[in-house]
Amino acid sequence: MCETCGCGQRKITLTVGEALLSENERWAQKNRAWFKKRQVKVINLIGSPGAGKTSLIEATARLWNQGKIAVIEGDPETQRDAERLSALGLPVAAVTTGGVCHLDARMVHQAFHQLVETDPHLLFIENVGNLLCPADFDLGEDLSVVVLSVTEGEDKPEKYPQAFRRAQVLVLTKIDLLPYVDFSLDRCLSLARQINPSLKVLPLSLKTGEGLSDWLEFLRS
Amino acid sequence: MCETCGCGQRKITLTVGEALLSENERWAQKNRAWFKKRQVKVINLIGSPGAGKTSLIEATARLWNQGKIAVIEGDPETQRDAERLSALGLPVAAVTTGGVCHLDARMVHQAFHQLVETDPHLLFIENVGNLLCPADFDLGEDLSVVVLSVTEGEDKPEKYPQAFRRAQVLVLTKIDLLPYVDFSLDRCLSLARQINPSLKVLPLSLKTGEGLSDWLEFLRS
Repeated sequence: MCETCGCGQRKITLTVGEALLSENERWAQKNRAWFKKRQVKVINLIGSPGAGKTSLIEATARLWNQGKIAVIEGDPETQRDAERLSALGLPVAAVTTGGVCHLDARMVHQAFHQLVETDPHLLFIENVGNLLCPADFDLGEDLSVVVLSVTEGEDKPEKYPQAFRRAQVLVLTKIDLLPYVDFSLDRCLSLARQINPSLKVLPLSLKTGEGLSDWLEFLRS
Repeated sequence: MCETCGCGQRKITLTVGEALLSENERWAQKNRAWFKKRQVKVINLIGSPGAGKTSLIEATARLWNQGKIAVIEGDPETQRDAERLSALGLPVAAVTTGGVCHLDARMVHQAFHQLVETDPHLLFIENVGNLLCPADFDLGEDLSVVVLSVTEGEDKPEKYPQAFRRAQVLVLTKIDLLPYVDFSLDRCLSLARQINPSLKVLPLSLKTGEGLSDWLEFLRS
């Protein structure tokens, strides 16, 4: 038996969590209406630190010729990724969350104020590097994309299902490293499709460019 | 100007966050006293999904000969990692958080109830795969270890500083992949030491075994 125990109540956590999500949903709806009015298509990128989210935006921006791109760049600290993307000439609104583990719809709303006059056709929201918490927050986006690198392991859809459930697309990055890691593409896709049968999967390498044309074609469609 | 805006208050978030952390601190102190009384050394492993936390415990367990190891295994969903470790004969308490992004001290307390009779000398707590939220929660551990793989990128200490600030040790995994990725070891260490000058760094590969003896020697000392 426990030498020190004495169990407390945890109900407050759930209640407050629900209130915050409902508050978020109100802002997400505002965003959705705003994005529709401005005719901007919005993509929410969710993935672990180092999965390749910023590199995916960089590669897309270099090859894109169907209208203006803007970026809302979420990071717990520093504006390094925002600076990388600004260097390409993209309008970028940096959201430094001060350690907070996700973007919420209100942060996105405030950030879009900085971008709306650039009149973008396509808006990337790079979420904070985290495969868990961002999946709980609707930002008002049109498309949710989960970015997973093959170095993270084939079991991740099963262990972090919410991000895979939420997404319409899985971009599987770093496929140039497949010869050097233990990763079964078949097993990963099978696990992902158990969670989300209609998930579209786009494997690619941002180093070699393999698969990038499929991603661009998908975005155009 | 905003077409839809109307800013609210967010004070409640901070207030509740502080209350939860203070509640956590009480449980962490209980844990610390309990671990001390049971003479068990406790290591909290924090890192992104796929950084190599479970593999590090597996490799350590295979080579360890200085007393009994037990594991508290945190995962948002599934007990796959707990099963991997149980297969090695380790006593494992699985904490499936149901999507919650970190372990807190109370979860650890409850999980240790399941392990205390195995009388371990060394207890690994594998935190939920997330480089952000777990860093805010003291679990009552003796040692906090941040596990970062070279495939995640050299800039991570700067972007996710709290985990690097909290840790006494950085285990840098997957160094067998260094020839295939853009990763400057020097720059990563320089950024990490700007945040935490006394951080001990142990680069290793769980695939080739390189560096593993240094990790074991460190644990023994």
